Amino acid sequence: MKHVIQLTVRPYECDSYGHVNHAVYVNYLEHARMQFLHAVGFDYKGLIAAGFFTVIARLELAYRQPAYADDELTIETEAGEPRRVGGAFQQVIRRGEDVIAEATVHWCVVNAKGRPTRPPAGFDLRGLLK
Amino acid sequence: MKHVIQLTVRPYECDSYGHVNHAVYVNYLEHARMQFLHAVGFDYKGLIAAGFFTVIARLELAYRQPAYADDELTIETEAGEPRRVGGAFQQVIRRGEDVIAEATVHWCVVNAKGRPTRPPAGFDLRGLLK
Amino acid sequence: MKHVIQLTVRPYECDSYGHVNHAVYVNYLEHARMQFLHAVGFDYKGLIAAGFFTVIARLELAYRQPAYADDELTIETEAGEPRRVGGAFQQVIRRGEDVIAEATVHWCVVNAKGRPTRPPAGFDLRGLLK
Amino acid sequence: MKHVIQLTVRPYECDSYGHVNHAVYVNYLEHARMQFLHAVGFDYKGLIAAGFFTVIARLELAYRQPAYADDELTIETEAGEPRRVGGAFQQVIRRGEDVIAEATVHWCVVNAKGRPTRPPAGFDLRGLLK
Repeated sequence: MKHVIQLTVRPYECDSYGHVNHAVYVNYLEHARMQFLHAVGFDYKGLIAAGFFTVIARLELAYRQPAYADDELTIETEAGEPRRVGGAFQQVIRRGEDVIAEATVHWCVVNAKGRPTRPPAGFDLRGLLK
Repeated sequence: MKHVIQLTVRPYECDSYGHVNHAVYVNYLEHARMQFLHAVGFDYKGLIAAGFFTVIARLELAYRQPAYADDELTIETEAGEPRRVGGAFQQVIRRGEDVIAEATVHWCVVNAKGRPTRPPAGFDLRGLLK
Repeated sequence: MKHVIQLTVRPYECDSYGHVNHAVYVNYLEHARMQFLHAVGFDYKGLIAAGFFTVIARLELAYRQPAYADDELTIETEAGEPRRVGGAFQQVIRRGEDVIAEATVHWCVVNAKGRPTRPPAGFDLRGLLK
Repeated sequence: MKHVIQLTVRPYECDSYGHVNHAVYVNYLEHARMQFLHAVGFDYKGLIAAGFFTVIARLELAYRQPAYADDELTIETEAGEPRRVGGAFQQVIRRGEDVIAEATVHWCVVNAKGRPTRPPAGFDLRGLLK
């Protein structure tokens, strides 16, 4: 499943070159992943209420082209096969056909002490993604 | 009591004009107020643990001159006389003698339901500021 | 003319209370004003190419209620009568019928030296708003 | 040469978990690299005046532990051997002895058209780092 959102670059997201600042893509990617989780029915608030949360363990982000204020961007999000305590998302940011950035984002579920852990039953992405 | 902090403008805080984005001053001012509260011994974590928190009710911010990446800024913070459920801070951002921005920030303590309320004993700025 | 945009609160815009951070509304308001200017046909890039730009001179922002991640917000923007070198926008952020925040934003056109100045012919909001 | 800066986590940099948002580290790392470039005497403004600028081509960031408001962090920055059109920085964010995050940041110099290019004489990190 490839999930797609659209967004418009806001002026305050651009730096003194007039480019979207490179940290802002990390925000965009997080927003897209949350929309993905909503779309597949992942009960994020339930996970937190159960005493767990998710953390980003590793981020790899390749910048291909700059983006500018008012650009209409699409962000594609795909989830790789979940592993015992987490998984990875593949994400691509495009403007039309052009690739602006590509990312791999590794995440895991942690317990209240911050230890990576298997998510409780009903909060497993595996089932949701089948 | 006039509390002063210093900070250096970071490049990502500047917008496509090369100016510090006007929203970033609001971040700077919050940072300065928190440092003020630390300096006067206000037990912010205790307030939250007791089921209260503070909110900003109103912000008035006059922009006098632009600031740029690497500028060394000072932020002066003074607390006005606290009122029953809150008070106001006067803040001035300067670069050397130049005034960059001036702000009045009205805040209040709220309870867990978000209702403005008198802070519990021991969390009253009034005593701290005497 | 009352211009309206919609946006969804993104998770990274929320602070440790789970509320939209109070500085983020300033970003939202800027985004809404830029969309307003696009909608009325204001040639912002032309203004910059002509050696002028706009600055925010004063911001008054009243916070009425908190907003949270995933909230769907609307932002209404109205321009007051332009003055010689600038004007003021009235903006209201709502979630459904609830008012989240209300703002008055004073702006002016400045020349390359940063001096407030009358905008060149063709870049006057007055004509656009009639 | 290992360059070190210190900074204090500001409250608005924390998300609804009370953790520094994972995108904020990207801002911190940029700030540290700019301070590194100042420290080694790199003429960044001169590079831009000469019609060039630098871009981030690739970012790899591993998150080891969360950081919180008021944490005092240090950021170590080291430059790898520059290559023809760019190079890589190794950066580590610590709180005391604890590693919070580790990053490799690949950058390159581009010309006014955005093409990776060898920087003009006098703007080569190679000489500065010897």
